[in-house]
Amino acid sequence: MDKILRIQMDGPKVSEGPLGDYAGLGGRAMTSTIISKEVPPLCHPLGEDNKIVFAPGMLSGTASVMSGRLSVGCKSPLTGGIKEANSGGQAAQVLARLGYAAIVLEGKPKDDTLYKVFIDKDGVKITEDNSLKKLGNYDLVEKMKADHGDKITCMSIGPAGEMKMSAASIAITDMELRPTRHAGRGGVGAVMGSKGVKVIVLDDTGMKIRSPKDPEKFKAANKAFTEGLKKHPVTGQGLPAYGTNVLTNVINEAGAYPTRNFASGQFEGVSKISGETQAETETARGGLATHGCHRGCIIKCSGVYNDKDGNYLTKQPEYETVWAHGGNCCIDDLDAIALMDRMDDDFGLDTIEMGVAIGVAMEAGLLKFGDAEAAINLLREVGKGTPLGRILGNGAGITGKVFGVERVPVVKNQALPAYDPRTVQGIGVTYATTTMGADHTAGYAVATNIMKVGGDVDPLKPEGQVELSRNLQIATAAIDSTGMCLFIAFAILDQPETFQALVDLLNGFYGLSMTGDDVTELGKSVLKKERDFNEQAGFTSKDDRLPAFFSKIPLSPHNLTFQVKDEELDTLHNW
Amino acid sequence: MDKILRIQMDGPKVSEGPLGDYAGLGGRAMTSTIISKEVPPLCHPLGEDNKIVFAPGMLSGTASVMSGRLSVGCKSPLTGGIKEANSGGQAAQVLARLGYAAIVLEGKPKDDTLYKVFIDKDGVKITEDNSLKKLGNYDLVEKMKADHGDKITCMSIGPAGEMKMSAASIAITDMELRPTRHAGRGGVGAVMGSKGVKVIVLDDTGMKIRSPKDPEKFKAANKAFTEGLKKHPVTGQGLPAYGTNVLTNVINEAGAYPTRNFASGQFEGVSKISGETQAETETARGGLATHGCHRGCIIKCSGVYNDKDGNYLTKQPEYETVWAHGGNCCIDDLDAIALMDRMDDDFGLDTIEMGVAIGVAMEAGLLKFGDAEAAINLLREVGKGTPLGRILGNGAGITGKVFGVERVPVVKNQALPAYDPRTVQGIGVTYATTTMGADHTAGYAVATNIMKVGGDVDPLKPEGQVELSRNLQIATAAIDSTGMCLFIAFAILDQPETFQALVDLLNGFYGLSMTGDDVTELGKSVLKKERDFNEQAGFTSKDDRLPAFFSKIPLSPHNLTFQVKDEELDTLHNW
Repeated sequence: MDKILRIQMDGPKVSEGPLGDYAGLGGRAMTSTIISKEVPPLCHPLGEDNKIVFAPGMLSGTASVMSGRLSVGCKSPLTGGIKEANSGGQAAQVLARLGYAAIVLEGKPKDDTLYKVFIDKDGVKITEDNSLKKLGNYDLVEKMKADHGDKITCMSIGPAGEMKMSAASIAITDMELRPTRHAGRGGVGAVMGSKGVKVIVLDDTGMKIRSPKDPEKFKAANKAFTEGLKKHPVTGQGLPAYGTNVLTNVINEAGAYPTRNFASGQFEGVSKISGETQAETETARGGLATHGCHRGCIIKCSGVYNDKDGNYLTKQPEYETVWAHGGNCCIDDLDAIALMDRMDDDFGLDTIEMGVAIGVAMEAGLLKFGDAEAAINLLREVGKGTPLGRILGNGAGITGKVFGVERVPVVKNQALPAYDPRTVQGIGVTYATTTMGADHTAGYAVATNIMKVGGDVDPLKPEGQVELSRNLQIATAAIDSTGMCLFIAFAILDQPETFQALVDLLNGFYGLSMTGDDVTELGKSVLKKERDFNEQAGFTSKDDRLPAFFSKIPLSPHNLTFQVKDEELDTLHNW
Repeated sequence: MDKILRIQMDGPKVSEGPLGDYAGLGGRAMTSTIISKEVPPLCHPLGEDNKIVFAPGMLSGTASVMSGRLSVGCKSPLTGGIKEANSGGQAAQVLARLGYAAIVLEGKPKDDTLYKVFIDKDGVKITEDNSLKKLGNYDLVEKMKADHGDKITCMSIGPAGEMKMSAASIAITDMELRPTRHAGRGGVGAVMGSKGVKVIVLDDTGMKIRSPKDPEKFKAANKAFTEGLKKHPVTGQGLPAYGTNVLTNVINEAGAYPTRNFASGQFEGVSKISGETQAETETARGGLATHGCHRGCIIKCSGVYNDKDGNYLTKQPEYETVWAHGGNCCIDDLDAIALMDRMDDDFGLDTIEMGVAIGVAMEAGLLKFGDAEAAINLLREVGKGTPLGRILGNGAGITGKVFGVERVPVVKNQALPAYDPRTVQGIGVTYATTTMGADHTAGYAVATNIMKVGGDVDPLKPEGQVELSRNLQIATAAIDSTGMCLFIAFAILDQPETFQALVDLLNGFYGLSMTGDDVTELGKSVLKKERDFNEQAGFTSKDDRLPAFFSKIPLSPHNLTFQVKDEELDTLHNW
């Protein structure tokens, strides 16, 4: 992982070089540093001056557990700011073993030609292949398997990315070579589409696992880290048993489950779509309730969702997906939700953005809340790229504007995820202030507000939320740079020895002597670069706000509004 | 003109009150002061906290010539900033004679009920009238005539305003009771639609002309002012003879005529759509090549455009309309352009925003450049509110985003008018820096750059453009507050005695002793309020920029890019 691959698409022309200024960086630290240094903040996100960076984390490709997260960075066509979208799947491990700390797509092709990029131990091959046009991710991967065998990993866009939709994702294949993991948020797929690249196929056959500088220390740290994850109730029990959808009952019980496009905080149909019901359904149909998305995952929060006939339909839909297409739209049909998850994965769409966009369309009266069939049909339009589909495919904000809707749950034009900020005030602070646009993963205050992980801050009160969110945002920026799955946060927040094991993993691998404070400094430096980029792109404190309705209209059942004051939000980035 | 009428639409409830803090204000000074004082800058433009203000100018309703301009102000759903859209037609004169310095629509109705507001000397009547739903402005006005006789003036929205499209205008009837004058820009029609008001019908029967404090001085000033306008070549000859479309040949000759969505600076079909051809066509078909839009107009820059059979089709399309639907889309068919003008007026749409949106759709490949029939069909979709129509009806910016287009000529999300900033660098400064979003009328540097009115600043060079635009923006803000048509600017810039006559008109009417400097101060104070509002709404210097392509891609035939530096643009509001 000592080189950077650059592909200039106005050619295309390939160049490889040493890390230079970027040495020592990984994941989000790598993508955000390259973007903030090389991309003009006011450039058009789909223009030749934008770049898209794929970077494995610092520990990706090593023997470390949980180190398979990939960062994808660019200027976002959805938010207009900097973006790091983070994905599981195999790509980070494979890229790292192929020796690449980053792949950067630059420039813009002269015409609509579509390209395939193939990378293995022998180098990089770029081929024109217009036969791939408008292929869904599933068909595309089958074609790649036919061409290149089944030892590959794919990073690809579906029709949505080709159509440069702002909700377009980049699909990353999992261990079974299914395009089920996505760098979902912020329209990274549209930027890949604007570069004319349909798929990057990776094959690490013949490449070795990355070797640590201090094998003994690294091995011991990995053991301690593994034990720490196993013993924490969230990563050792809850997530493996029910996946992320274990949250449906929890969040609904807390009255924080945004229902009917954020009109209420509890959904009456929740038992039909909960993680418990989902796991039961999966098991009964011969699917899997527990499954990891990449080599080295020991949490295994995913699963396999089969249809009624027992045939594979999609991976286990995540909590946010089940919420976005489910409760948010008053849809209580798990099969319909799973089908929409499959469609999103196939078209290459962010499930959160799409579910919220459909909810806004429901609010506009285009279809009824609860009408699963109409929602599926609407999603079909997105895949086809009809005018209506293009509206939805460009996200909840555009959908709201086009149909004149007032209640549009977006921050920096990115759709809010599955926790209402009126009942989980800490996550509201994160939504408002993160550099990413509304994003729960940028500082998951739900952990401390609801699950009481890493402390206990009352979710219903404004006190302490800014400090909580600030600390979580800093920690997250650091974790996102290591290649570690964010779910390690539960254990490292609660268990000091597990946090130390993470630091030891980094020190053992790189022969460093970092302390916890150094990790914090890394997180701060990433956030600062991102924030500077956004400021130069025209963002101000006015962009660090929730939509006004959260402060005006109380949410049932707690009848609360978002209480954190603007002046407090404005202190988040002071440290 | 000593009272303000407020209609709270969550009722609706009518209240009238004295001017209070707003005494002495008119037109844009009135609308921008009320909006900046009463509307939260971060509110949703279609929500209950936004207000829409209709204000005649300081001299409207008097015997002064040219004093019939109406200002319509709100927070714009198109730009997200403050908006003053300015219109001719009869409304300003009539409103002023009815005694209203402003009508303010506030709050929001509880449901979709549509209201008619009728105002005459006996007061205000508000009626629910859902039979008006989706009526075009022409049919609507016929209905109002049937109900209220032909002494009325209407301010109304078409289907576009009801659908809350960001390109929706407010139609103002002219002397023949045709809905041909529009407060066009920034989506003011959508805000009126969000208030549930389809039409405000005004009848000033029984009301008197407003009396000056110093009748002698006022009368003398009016005479001198009239003479000044008559003797200036632009207002005395060019505009009466050919209307604003006299510019087509002039601007094309200068290489500043944006063609094919701002891809080149000259249009080969220009002779077919020039003002000269247009006037000839109008006369030959029994229309009018010269016509005033309101009582007291002596410039008479408008006309009547009949179809091939000699039947009224629309008023004489303006230069900007002919350009937007014509040269910008490579359409050289005057009849097709006139039909689109009629459709825009009927649906209630800004012709500039629509023409530019269609050009962007052409760039996206939805229809071919030059295909008039396809353009007309596309416009029909807007009127119907199909998904495709909703995209276009929300403006060029949204159209560009939805279809992933890179060359989208907007500033603050508002479409650029008919002068390419690479060849008329002064107007580029105005587009970039005005509080309004791209707007030629906010500081018409074309006058000095091309017509050499008020001085001579080389249009092809960056030098002097910021100072020119600054002075024009200040002067314009003042003129827009008097109720005077902006076309008086040609004469008052070139002829000191005509400027003095304007000051004397104000002094004679109000019994004041203002100087020219006071007029300048008025303009500055208006701009400052608008700029403060926009800053609080989240605008920064990064919003005071042209799209990047103007600085990157040279325009033929001069092969120039926009040369004014960002740092210079940032000094515009320093005075």
